[in-house]
Amino acid sequence: MSAQPFSSRWVPGLSHVRDVALDRLPQGFRAAGVAAGIKPSGGHDVGLLVCDSADATSAARFTRSGVQAAPVLVTRERCRLDALRAVAVNSGNANAATGSLGYQLAAKMQGAGAMCAGVHEDQVAVCSTGVIGVQLDGRAIVSGLSAARGQLRPDGAQDLQLAIETTDLFHKHAALEVDIPGGTVSLTAQCKGAGMIQPSHATMLCFVETDAVLSAETADLLLGVTVKRSFDRITVDGQLSTNDTVILIAGGASGVTVEPESEAEVRFGEALDMLLRRLALLIVRDGEGSARVGRVVVRGGHQPNVERAARAVANSPLVKTALHGGDPNWGRVAQAVGMALPETAPLPVDIAIEGMQVCVAGQAVGHDAEALAARVQGAEVEYVIGLPGDGCETEVFFSDFGHEYIRINAEYTT
Amino acid sequence: MSAQPFSSRWVPGLSHVRDVALDRLPQGFRAAGVAAGIKPSGGHDVGLLVCDSADATSAARFTRSGVQAAPVLVTRERCRLDALRAVAVNSGNANAATGSLGYQLAAKMQGAGAMCAGVHEDQVAVCSTGVIGVQLDGRAIVSGLSAARGQLRPDGAQDLQLAIETTDLFHKHAALEVDIPGGTVSLTAQCKGAGMIQPSHATMLCFVETDAVLSAETADLLLGVTVKRSFDRITVDGQLSTNDTVILIAGGASGVTVEPESEAEVRFGEALDMLLRRLALLIVRDGEGSARVGRVVVRGGHQPNVERAARAVANSPLVKTALHGGDPNWGRVAQAVGMALPETAPLPVDIAIEGMQVCVAGQAVGHDAEALAARVQGAEVEYVIGLPGDGCETEVFFSDFGHEYIRINAEYTT
Repeated sequence: MSAQPFSSRWVPGLSHVRDVALDRLPQGFRAAGVAAGIKPSGGHDVGLLVCDSADATSAARFTRSGVQAAPVLVTRERCRLDALRAVAVNSGNANAATGSLGYQLAAKMQGAGAMCAGVHEDQVAVCSTGVIGVQLDGRAIVSGLSAARGQLRPDGAQDLQLAIETTDLFHKHAALEVDIPGGTVSLTAQCKGAGMIQPSHATMLCFVETDAVLSAETADLLLGVTVKRSFDRITVDGQLSTNDTVILIAGGASGVTVEPESEAEVRFGEALDMLLRRLALLIVRDGEGSARVGRVVVRGGHQPNVERAARAVANSPLVKTALHGGDPNWGRVAQAVGMALPETAPLPVDIAIEGMQVCVAGQAVGHDAEALAARVQGAEVEYVIGLPGDGCETEVFFSDFGHEYIRINAEYTT
Repeated sequence: MSAQPFSSRWVPGLSHVRDVALDRLPQGFRAAGVAAGIKPSGGHDVGLLVCDSADATSAARFTRSGVQAAPVLVTRERCRLDALRAVAVNSGNANAATGSLGYQLAAKMQGAGAMCAGVHEDQVAVCSTGVIGVQLDGRAIVSGLSAARGQLRPDGAQDLQLAIETTDLFHKHAALEVDIPGGTVSLTAQCKGAGMIQPSHATMLCFVETDAVLSAETADLLLGVTVKRSFDRITVDGQLSTNDTVILIAGGASGVTVEPESEAEVRFGEALDMLLRRLALLIVRDGEGSARVGRVVVRGGHQPNVERAARAVANSPLVKTALHGGDPNWGRVAQAVGMALPETAPLPVDIAIEGMQVCVAGQAVGHDAEALAARVQGAEVEYVIGLPGDGCETEVFFSDFGHEYIRINAEYTT
């Protein structure tokens, strides 16, 4: 199993960061993934991640949905989110909309995870992904975690990766070495997500491990900033999940410290930023049948309007189907912007696609239609929109809408 | 050409209203539609509607988009919206995002319409629908209107209907006789729309004619109320168009008066309400490949939340693809509600589908899954959602998302 070699003009490489083998976790971490009978396919569906350091620090981010899955509630309510040392996870069942019984099962999963990881319950995050509204099979979870315990190993990252995937068409993970003042640290991540993606992160789970020494405050600061620039900036279908969870655990085994407001923090932060933007783009690329990835950049004088316009374009089924068809249909971009900003007519909007200006101050401008049509045939298409005023800017990455999205989502069953 | 016989449990018939032949307009109206070379298909693309009464009254509603097409701006800025006597319309080109030249062309279209209809310019509404961002062929419009003038006739409703259609798969029109105290009046409408539909009316045009005698205030009141209950309550793809226009013209030739706050007003209003809800549902049924129509009803104690939740469910690609697949996937309904109401967890949401309760206070409840699966195979599927509190309620009608939507929208070109 190997990762897709990653390449995107939107996430340039960094000279102090190298890709390394994907199976090995940073020093001090072990992981496992097993098939416990939760997925009908019989694939890997229960995973366990453990950090062996008693001094580990951590940070976490969750879905903002009003309907939060039981594992999210349990993790938020019962964990020391700044001192997590383990994650117990399952795929195939989201344990969402399952009420108090679901909550009890998530708590039981946390307890079993604690026993298998050998840590306190309040240091075990629980995560689930899959179908909503079906009670979790608690016995399968417990026996799965128990089996996983016997298979925990330093090169278990890919088994864990398999255990969190659902409709993913390819793996979303990475393993990096990062040179920072003081030494070299490892940074790895396992991630899943393909649909039900936006507007804060996504139907996505992402576990990030490092052997750097980070204070809990630094971990929280860096995760907060980088999640905002990655999982918060993507959309597949405009749907926010009930289960989104991102967890960073820093074990410290490298002995290399990332001090606040140091050069090391900048370098480590850049690497984490690159890592999460990469994974976020992989989610968009997967996008349940996606053929192309779009990036919409909106500039203007009013941040809420800038944000609204970008989301409206990125989530417009008309823009997304045009992107799928390799059609530069910028009229749909103008329509989406207008919809996002009602009662502002006439709105002097500028639109450029792949560097070609097609609309200035709300009016079509002459351009080489053939050259433009050729430019939107690629794997990445960029739309730059100007609204009145300046000083504000945002970006959203989005997938197209094709037949595969319909096939996957009309057939994926309750 | 005949209308689809209309039937929906959501729009019951009225004992004082009868369907009549579709070709004939109310007394005092004439219409025509011709092929002027604007649609690449060579089909009808320019239409003209005229009311012969100098005392006609009217009312109109328009898109709220910040990017409004030139004909919308011209009609809003240059017309006596309470005294319209004619509509000049074209399909195949929306005349949107076309700047000052587009505005001049829309004004020219209005002038040509006035000459051909024999009325003042400020009594001629102009409407366009089709591709965005391409300049209108002014000569084709003028010669089309000129040709239409020679073909104006009392039974020209269906030619006008053809001239406004774009991606419509079937006709959306109706002709009714309405018994009200004082006599019988006629009420007819021609309507188009299939995609780019929501949240105020839609990529839709709708022209309503009656020979009843209405004051301009009554016309405005009744159109306002009934548009809110029809075109404002539908969504195909969550996309608000640049060109939406609904126009009601009352010529008065029947001599039967609809007085304010009279029994006649109630009866006439009921008929107009039925008419517009019918047409709105036909738009959703068309829905660019739609196989099923959904209706989501949300009740609760806070109107903005009720509205947000209903829109989120109706526009969720996940709910829409499940509807397409005849899948009662209520977990996606719960997810969409949660997304619409962030930071409210745990949200005690109730969900019933086709009368079967599947979720109470956020928790799945036992139900006959087989019976439920059978119930969502029909042409109409109803979702009823309860949020905390009471006193507020809304409904949204929505189409599903199937392969046809992708095919139509990935291939419909700039």
